[in-house]
Amino acid sequence: MKHNFGAGPCILPKEVFQEAAQAVIDFNNTGLSILEISHRSKDFEAVISETERLVRELLNVPQGYSILFLQGGASTQFAMVPLNLLPEGGKAAYFDTGVWATKAAKEAKKIGQVEVVASSSDRNYTYIPKNITVPSDAAYFHYTTNNTIYGTEVFDIPQSAVPVVADMSSDILSREINVADYGLIYAGAQKNMGPAGVTLVIVKDELLGKTGRTLPSIFDYDSHIKGGSMYNTPPVYSIYVSMLNLRWLKAKGGISVIEQENIVKARTLYDEIDRNSLFKGTAEVEDRSRMNVTFVMNNPELEGAFLDLAKERGHIGLKGHRSVGGFRASIYNALSISSVNALVDTMQEFEEKYK
Amino acid sequence: MKHNFGAGPCILPKEVFQEAAQAVIDFNNTGLSILEISHRSKDFEAVISETERLVRELLNVPQGYSILFLQGGASTQFAMVPLNLLPEGGKAAYFDTGVWATKAAKEAKKIGQVEVVASSSDRNYTYIPKNITVPSDAAYFHYTTNNTIYGTEVFDIPQSAVPVVADMSSDILSREINVADYGLIYAGAQKNMGPAGVTLVIVKDELLGKTGRTLPSIFDYDSHIKGGSMYNTPPVYSIYVSMLNLRWLKAKGGISVIEQENIVKARTLYDEIDRNSLFKGTAEVEDRSRMNVTFVMNNPELEGAFLDLAKERGHIGLKGHRSVGGFRASIYNALSISSVNALVDTMQEFEEKYK
Repeated sequence: MKHNFGAGPCILPKEVFQEAAQAVIDFNNTGLSILEISHRSKDFEAVISETERLVRELLNVPQGYSILFLQGGASTQFAMVPLNLLPEGGKAAYFDTGVWATKAAKEAKKIGQVEVVASSSDRNYTYIPKNITVPSDAAYFHYTTNNTIYGTEVFDIPQSAVPVVADMSSDILSREINVADYGLIYAGAQKNMGPAGVTLVIVKDELLGKTGRTLPSIFDYDSHIKGGSMYNTPPVYSIYVSMLNLRWLKAKGGISVIEQENIVKARTLYDEIDRNSLFKGTAEVEDRSRMNVTFVMNNPELEGAFLDLAKERGHIGLKGHRSVGGFRASIYNALSISSVNALVDTMQEFEEKYK
Repeated sequence: MKHNFGAGPCILPKEVFQEAAQAVIDFNNTGLSILEISHRSKDFEAVISETERLVRELLNVPQGYSILFLQGGASTQFAMVPLNLLPEGGKAAYFDTGVWATKAAKEAKKIGQVEVVASSSDRNYTYIPKNITVPSDAAYFHYTTNNTIYGTEVFDIPQSAVPVVADMSSDILSREINVADYGLIYAGAQKNMGPAGVTLVIVKDELLGKTGRTLPSIFDYDSHIKGGSMYNTPPVYSIYVSMLNLRWLKAKGGISVIEQENIVKARTLYDEIDRNSLFKGTAEVEDRSRMNVTFVMNNPELEGAFLDLAKERGHIGLKGHRSVGGFRASIYNALSISSVNALVDTMQEFEEKYK
């Protein structure tokens, strides 16, 4: 039995894999593979429509927002957001809560003026700065809702009088949000939505078309809105598997249900980290992420031995990012509480041996 | 028995589907799905390395060229090519042989000056202009090697004293080419290379870094070269399936072997079109594509009846593009001669009934 704690691409539900494999051989009893059907076929149009409907329903996306399935990951959005929302001569506000937030700001600086309104780089991004002030003359305010590397999460949207843009790559669909609070949300799929290769964008239509920039069509949200996410050939399979995963989430009861599970999973693991004499968490307690649990050992020399035991017990992807060290347990939607319990058991087994 | 003549995403070999499905359940006996493994895992690094090696070997890519697997399709390359190769104030030369070639030039115009050196729009792109002159002060010359919609193919590289950039989306890996003749080659995977979601770029390194432009990292080939196609999370599954397909091509004997098969397939179908009293080809004979065979009926009123019979006989994706009408049989690498023969049989059956 493997327990996949990888940070992404990461675990998806087993039943999704079963159906996803079947469709590679015979999709919808068409006698064709999902990999060989036209994206303009009725069968695939039904897939992309259902995927969009499921996103709209699960996240309760209001009217006036478009839902897009694009390629290129969050890294492409780092450029597309300012290209589409930052007018020539305008400025954008960025919140620096980790490496990915820093990258987003750095890329935006190549396109226009950027003001970093607050940063937690002074303590290696182990906390989320509070009571920040977003300048009212910014075109938008950008932040990263969950910092995968550092195990911090922003649970309350920072106060902002300007449209809020959020990179939700690593916590979208894990907890309830109010989409109306945002001007634009983007997320690489490869955590809670689906496999790598597709990026979700939810954008408030009225914000678009105001920059005065001439954009290559492929970088213009408007092309993709007009094309119904088929301005160019979409990543067919990644969208299909995302649809299966969204169906799974809906069948479970939706985001309110998964959020409760995620709270229990995170609490279980943080409780053990706090209780166990060998381990300690790295993030400020109030900012601890429910998706990526980062922790180290009081005695760093034992970390190798713990990783060895964890591997023996079937725990995958536990090694921490090099900029934090120690361990990172990513406990996304599809990771079951039994896998969290297995990790807790292993931590206790290790404590017995080394305390 | 289905015969998939779709223009793309399109047929891939059956044995590729079998292995691709298995990996969704259990990849390489890891106990994990290919959809849930990290792109930084050794297992996936082996996949991307092998995919690159196979491209280098099959296309005989010389030293000094980088091979990249990107996202966003040829439509993204329409912008990335001028962003990376067209200096501020410079101009680029484009060859207008169809809708996709036109789009490539249109997108480049948003970035710099474009000179269209020749066009076959006067006769609905049914031929390839010959003896064109490429201005020697252009930064590069861009052309589309195969025009999917119109069924024309450029078999001889146009004379050019400046670096040649080719969109080979629909005929790459179908016939031998001399990569050294090109400065940059790009191709959406979803015809002869793999499923939708990945784009192959082969670029001569010495052409890069000379435009004086500041680019967002994600649009800069250099980021992707330095990152070994993992500057950001790559489209894992699309690359994996491409690797399986390239293995299949190598096991068949490589491009020289598939090229001979493609020549036989195309000749078989064109011979029937020319022989059959009900049908006629739409492209100039000397420019006929070996990948997309476009044809119509002498009596257009019979086209519906032929499509009905074709459907009964299991032929998929035969309807022609709206800008040409009639039929388009895409006969890519993975389509067997037996499927071509089945289509010929259906054409003869139809002739018997309606002549």
